[in-house]
Amino acid sequence: MKHLINDRHSLIEEMIEGLVAAYNGTVVKVDNVNGIMRKEIKENKVTLLVGGGSGHEPIYHGLVGENMADAAAIGNIFASPNPEIIYETAKASHRGNGILFLYGNYAGDNLNFDIAAEMLEDEGIKVKTVRINDDVATDDIDGRRGIAGLFFAVKIAGAACASVDNLDEAFRIVSKAVSKIRSMGTAFEPGIMLNTGKSTFTLAEDEIEIGMGIHGEPGVEVTKLKSSKELVGIMLTKIINDLPFNKGDEVALMINDLGSFTNMELLIANKAIAEFLEQIGIKNLYTHIGKVSTTMDMRGFSISLIQLDEELKKYLFTNANSIAFDFHR
Amino acid sequence: MKHLINDRHSLIEEMIEGLVAAYNGTVVKVDNVNGIMRKEIKENKVTLLVGGGSGHEPIYHGLVGENMADAAAIGNIFASPNPEIIYETAKASHRGNGILFLYGNYAGDNLNFDIAAEMLEDEGIKVKTVRINDDVATDDIDGRRGIAGLFFAVKIAGAACASVDNLDEAFRIVSKAVSKIRSMGTAFEPGIMLNTGKSTFTLAEDEIEIGMGIHGEPGVEVTKLKSSKELVGIMLTKIINDLPFNKGDEVALMINDLGSFTNMELLIANKAIAEFLEQIGIKNLYTHIGKVSTTMDMRGFSISLIQLDEELKKYLFTNANSIAFDFHR
Repeated sequence: MKHLINDRHSLIEEMIEGLVAAYNGTVVKVDNVNGIMRKEIKENKVTLLVGGGSGHEPIYHGLVGENMADAAAIGNIFASPNPEIIYETAKASHRGNGILFLYGNYAGDNLNFDIAAEMLEDEGIKVKTVRINDDVATDDIDGRRGIAGLFFAVKIAGAACASVDNLDEAFRIVSKAVSKIRSMGTAFEPGIMLNTGKSTFTLAEDEIEIGMGIHGEPGVEVTKLKSSKELVGIMLTKIINDLPFNKGDEVALMINDLGSFTNMELLIANKAIAEFLEQIGIKNLYTHIGKVSTTMDMRGFSISLIQLDEELKKYLFTNANSIAFDFHR
Repeated sequence: MKHLINDRHSLIEEMIEGLVAAYNGTVVKVDNVNGIMRKEIKENKVTLLVGGGSGHEPIYHGLVGENMADAAAIGNIFASPNPEIIYETAKASHRGNGILFLYGNYAGDNLNFDIAAEMLEDEGIKVKTVRINDDVATDDIDGRRGIAGLFFAVKIAGAACASVDNLDEAFRIVSKAVSKIRSMGTAFEPGIMLNTGKSTFTLAEDEIEIGMGIHGEPGVEVTKLKSSKELVGIMLTKIINDLPFNKGDEVALMINDLGSFTNMELLIANKAIAEFLEQIGIKNLYTHIGKVSTTMDMRGFSISLIQLDEELKKYLFTNANSIAFDFHR
């Protein structure tokens, strides 16, 4: 695989320099560690800190911005940021009113963010943690992975942390949001990692893997290639039965490009999804289609749905600004 | 190549249904032809109509929206929309004050849009045409192809057509904008066409092609893989010398993912670009990085620069809203 890089050993550092430049002056690097934060964070605001391993760009660091995350702790490719990165990024972005940690439910992240939270609490900084666990392909609710549904979680959390006056209230809203999100992905081809040049897994010429995780974790089924209509039906049935979503529910939909899926395929999928949701009487208020959570250049896509109530709608539909996602009405 | 489709013969029709659904109710299909338009277009507004072949999603039809294009005429994969599509889409979106056609400089598009313009003028509808020709890899200025720089052209044209009171004034502004845009791309791997399953060209394992067109047209040089810094230097030197851009100029930058380039590579490229521009004293006011103009899932990227004056800044930095690009300040 031909990659556009300078040095496989300085990928993350170079990416962060390019990332800060891409934010057009609104984001700065945290001193000494691989973290970024908004240049201006209001005094006494509840800080929203996100983070995780790299290789999934544009998340998480592309979701830092106005009414979005305040800061992101950035790990190496497929590796959690270490506690020092999280701690320093949290310290630098804290504004006196506590910090909400929001990240995907992975063992390495859980461990490192928990250690950083203890370090911060030892200094009197209040921390609350919400872990995103939206992947219905994993059966055990406690062990569920976080995948692209984090998009809705960060969007709502960003708006909530910008408007509530205390950490407990932000925690309540974001916990509720995460409990209402369900996602599932399908891989058509693996991604190639920039640091090693290796594939994350292999698939036969005519096979796809339904429920594949974003690091190449096994899914629920390796199967023959299916039509858009059939595959979307399998994925949505699993998602809808899980929460469950019910007739009359108001939802928002995200179709995520896992890396190198074409926009045409995503739009063709959206036709099938829109028809499926309409048929079962679920009311989709908002669709977002794009590259949000990737596995390098993996070919594939995921579907995320969030069940909305009035409070979640308010935060989901608050104007927001980041390099990976803008929203305004 | 495994594609997520239902039927290779109805790709465009299914894509359009998914596209209209993705616009969350703000865009409708034009009756009987493959065109889309904003649901609400103000009476007496100068209409902005864009269009071209499919296979380059999210352009052009992803750039329909508020302060963006009013309508898009959609061709088959790598094929211009026929005059009937353009004519019907133009008729449906015309609001009594003329229509600006804005599209890439390709023989098929030129021919079909010109025929449609004649048909409209025969009915007393005023049409002006601006062709985007930003690709510096093509030497002859008359024959220059339009590539991803159309992003800046549509952004500025959308804001201009929403605020000026006549077609001639819109034409003047958009013509100026197009004359200030320069772009260049590099391909690392070809894209695979959804309608045929075939590659657009071939490249050896260790080779890249600098200056490759978005349909696989030959570039200026097939060469060995280079570092980010070296490749960006070659591309920017060609872009900067062409206009030329000069020390002290204010510009905006777009780094376009041609299909399946990773965000990490684009950000690493941005580091090198930011350093290059700073070194030669060019002031970059705004960076956009993402998938704008693609060749199905081609691996590669392009760089676009626009030289700004006060008038172009005003329109470039007007708030805007579309499914492929949002801007607000």
